[in-house]
Amino acid sequence: MTPCVAKLTRDDLLALDVEDPLAPVRKRFCLPKGVIYLDGNSLGALPRTVIERTREVVEHQWGNGLIRSWTAHGWIDLPRTVGDKIARLVGARAGEVIVTDSTTVNIFRLACAALRARPDRRGVLLESDNFPADNYIAEGIRDWLDNVDLRFASAAKLANAIDDSVALVLASHVNYRTGRIQDLPGITAQAHDAGALVLWDLAHSAGIMPVDVDTNDVDLAVGCGYKYLCGGPGAPGFLFVAERLQEELLPPLYGWLGHAEPFAFEPKWRPAPGISRHQCGTPGVLGMTALDAALDVLLEVDLAAVRRKSVALSDAFVTLVEQECDGHGLALDSPRDASERGNQIVLRHSEGYAICQALIARNVIGDFRAPEHLRFGFSPLYLWHVDMWDAVAALRDVMEAREWDHPAFQRRAYVT
Amino acid sequence: MTPCVAKLTRDDLLALDVEDPLAPVRKRFCLPKGVIYLDGNSLGALPRTVIERTREVVEHQWGNGLIRSWTAHGWIDLPRTVGDKIARLVGARAGEVIVTDSTTVNIFRLACAALRARPDRRGVLLESDNFPADNYIAEGIRDWLDNVDLRFASAAKLANAIDDSVALVLASHVNYRTGRIQDLPGITAQAHDAGALVLWDLAHSAGIMPVDVDTNDVDLAVGCGYKYLCGGPGAPGFLFVAERLQEELLPPLYGWLGHAEPFAFEPKWRPAPGISRHQCGTPGVLGMTALDAALDVLLEVDLAAVRRKSVALSDAFVTLVEQECDGHGLALDSPRDASERGNQIVLRHSEGYAICQALIARNVIGDFRAPEHLRFGFSPLYLWHVDMWDAVAALRDVMEAREWDHPAFQRRAYVT
Repeated sequence: MTPCVAKLTRDDLLALDVEDPLAPVRKRFCLPKGVIYLDGNSLGALPRTVIERTREVVEHQWGNGLIRSWTAHGWIDLPRTVGDKIARLVGARAGEVIVTDSTTVNIFRLACAALRARPDRRGVLLESDNFPADNYIAEGIRDWLDNVDLRFASAAKLANAIDDSVALVLASHVNYRTGRIQDLPGITAQAHDAGALVLWDLAHSAGIMPVDVDTNDVDLAVGCGYKYLCGGPGAPGFLFVAERLQEELLPPLYGWLGHAEPFAFEPKWRPAPGISRHQCGTPGVLGMTALDAALDVLLEVDLAAVRRKSVALSDAFVTLVEQECDGHGLALDSPRDASERGNQIVLRHSEGYAICQALIARNVIGDFRAPEHLRFGFSPLYLWHVDMWDAVAALRDVMEAREWDHPAFQRRAYVT
Repeated sequence: MTPCVAKLTRDDLLALDVEDPLAPVRKRFCLPKGVIYLDGNSLGALPRTVIERTREVVEHQWGNGLIRSWTAHGWIDLPRTVGDKIARLVGARAGEVIVTDSTTVNIFRLACAALRARPDRRGVLLESDNFPADNYIAEGIRDWLDNVDLRFASAAKLANAIDDSVALVLASHVNYRTGRIQDLPGITAQAHDAGALVLWDLAHSAGIMPVDVDTNDVDLAVGCGYKYLCGGPGAPGFLFVAERLQEELLPPLYGWLGHAEPFAFEPKWRPAPGISRHQCGTPGVLGMTALDAALDVLLEVDLAAVRRKSVALSDAFVTLVEQECDGHGLALDSPRDASERGNQIVLRHSEGYAICQALIARNVIGDFRAPEHLRFGFSPLYLWHVDMWDAVAALRDVMEAREWDHPAFQRRAYVT
């Protein structure tokens, strides 16, 4: 006989919301009525302030200011000014982060720069279970250059695979599928012991948990503007280069705005000092200002409190799945211990795709990751604890009614 | 004694506006009252439809649709659908253009692809008077790869400098400073005779004059979304790859969305068929939809009529400068014959910078290009002929009063 453990009730969760200091932040976001949004790890919800800011940028700054707004409204400085805001979220100093291009282009640029900074080493060590796109970029670099040697190791074996032929380790702080937290401090230290550089993809950690890039002596990092940073669909990415490496690293993309004096129109490229040399073309002002406005909301709240609530939400979710959905074949593919995972829970089921669609039809939005994973993210800024109850109740109803059999729930594609 | 030629009067220009079929198009744009905007070659003015479209995308598609809008509102297809609209403007077929990243990244990607497609040739031929940023990118590629050989020739000597060691010619269709039209058909044919590929930068021609990339057998091209395409500050760029080359060319950036099946999350990159392999990260939806809305306005008007009016405007401008500003030391650095120039007029003066600022203070907005060039563009969609009179009258007043001496008009930076 199992011991009698008190069941978690909907009222228990409502009680947590009453005392939650972050509960009022939800009002800062626009969310469709009745929807429980568990996909902020793919596209963050819309901060209300973005609406007004976007209108201001389009109608006033562009419409009236025209070309003059590049200086009058600081457009030309956005990569740096927005980067400095992100720096505060990831534990970097001002001048160590810029916003530019996409995560893909930024990984390419920094990986190439790292290889050039370690000319006697050609090994690039990759996580075999990383988000595939990160590894695609390394493949492209290998195919482009002659003598780059790609090596793969699972997250658990990554640290031990670093040797003195490795120029660069490329890994994700939080796994895109399972949510498992990688040992960022340990792997970074191991890489440094072997003389290698590390490039961390912070897509699933920046803005949702402390990263502390400077405290952890991180060399290079990239991240995404449209997940936890709430910058909007396809928001620009960001990159971090530790100050101590900035003068040494040269990007392969010699961009106009990475020139020491872009407006001198000199015939030869000269790198700008510091992080700015990694800038490239003209910054996309609409996307960057939406991200800028969203960051102002994020910077008003305490990141440690965000992490505490993230843990509470995902723990409640797992507990409720165990309690309410037992016997339906849903397997937990995320760490059960919250300290080992970021802000998402992944459940595996052979009908994962259709279950995800059936949940969406019930206004519970998560996402699906091939081949059979249901992924749920728990943005503490716009979710309540009671949402966990209601989401799992919907999941239970889907499972009990075997709704995945419905033809309306067959395959379509979603974007991370 | 010079023959008596009738002076051009303000009424002559007003009469042209009365009969101008494009005059009503101005109402489709937001322009600040009293401003004569001669800088659409740097940042196109705001089409009214962009305001409503941006609100719809932010408030409804993002705010309410959230992640579902990637499919429900076609976000994921934007690089192709917006690209197909640009294809119509430059004489390409559907499926030959995508919208992605910036001009800088696109030149890098296509130049690298061209070098890989000509593995026995390492010469890259550059226009010595091209927009410097285009050549910076080639420098970056040269510094990164071992055996790339950059060669420079003036626009006039470019065709003769192509030999069978040249893999790629990189040139601009219209010079960013003088506005001189390059011999695109001739240079393309010459390159093909020598077995080389050509990459044309259409930043200063796409959307303002016929380019006819397919008729002219162009291989590769890139262009800018924020100049004549009116996509807003830092709008994404576009790239063209002729259908006949699409299966052969591989980009160095192996992007997630350039994968044949992005959502299969396969461990290895496989190029998507056709132009899509050049896509990379998640498309920036805010910037792309603004560009999309702007293109709808451009596609309603006849490009041949746009070119005719562009010629009429710039001819009137030059004639008036000759007539009204004679003796003030303003030298024409653009071709006097309109058939040899795109949509801009450049005047040289040692006080060019301060003159530009003095004009802006009088609500005539052009721009300055180092070291001493005043650049004026003539967007036929939102300018009237009479604006040419009023702009030159302001210039004459600035020159007669020597307003450039005023300390308020000293150096600041503007973006192209």
